[in-house]
Amino acid sequence: MKMKLLLSGLALALGSGYTLTSFSQVKPEVLVKERQSVMTLQWKYFSSPYRMAQGKVPYNAQVVARNAGYLDALSKMPWDGFIADTQGVKSRALPAIYSDPGKFKAAQDAFQSEVAKLVSVSKGGDEAAVKAQISAVDKACGSCHENFRQRQ
Amino acid sequence: MKMKLLLSGLALALGSGYTLTSFSQVKPEVLVKERQSVMTLQWKYFSSPYRMAQGKVPYNAQVVARNAGYLDALSKMPWDGFIADTQGVKSRALPAIYSDPGKFKAAQDAFQSEVAKLVSVSKGGDEAAVKAQISAVDKACGSCHENFRQRQ
Repeated sequence: MKMKLLLSGLALALGSGYTLTSFSQVKPEVLVKERQSVMTLQWKYFSSPYRMAQGKVPYNAQVVARNAGYLDALSKMPWDGFIADTQGVKSRALPAIYSDPGKFKAAQDAFQSEVAKLVSVSKGGDEAAVKAQISAVDKACGSCHENFRQRQ
Repeated sequence: MKMKLLLSGLALALGSGYTLTSFSQVKPEVLVKERQSVMTLQWKYFSSPYRMAQGKVPYNAQVVARNAGYLDALSKMPWDGFIADTQGVKSRALPAIYSDPGKFKAAQDAFQSEVAKLVSVSKGGDEAAVKAQISAVDKACGSCHENFRQRQ
């Protein structure tokens, strides 16, 4: 069991922004702050496309394409901050993140994949297709939040 | 004067993640939170390369290249959050940001350019060149912080 934990920590560290040595120095509250920072920025760059898809603000293809690129990078950043050690830090993360890691990973992958599709669709000129893909990203956000984030 | 302010607001909005309509709805404290989130993430992804360049952790070319890509996106994100309206919100931002916008813009550009160079150098295999460029990025961070961020 100890070996399994060690290996899973190793896999996390290798997949993260941290090298093994520095990873072990990152405090749980810093990990939470970092992953929350990603969520803050995802909304910064998704809110405009989202409102465009809803028809609440005028469509701007250039802004969508630029923001999609930012979201592509951001969509890869939060996940290594969700390690069991952070459960003692106040946040809206639900226990299901740790009790059902397979489902959580599937939700991450679905989100990343929808964002990647937005990157490629937003390079074309089809406004309806772009708006449909914005809605697909929104669904992926919502699905992960519904299962893994506490309601306010 | 009113026209000038309006135009400068327009330029900011167009350059930002926000469309005009939604931009005006973003509260100063949200702008501060967003720009601070970028700084948090820049350190998340710069800290490992920085420690590698210092010889404190083992060099890992793959991590540097991956993080450089993330930093490239992040380095473009904080600046539209530095608008005069945010001066009433507690942060370490110094008044020079608003009294000397030309110098602040030059510092942003220098930082982005050093990060872009790191992206391209880290694609090659020259460890010494990569480490030198990591130090150049560090210098650009430091130079901006020295002039525009309050010491703790």
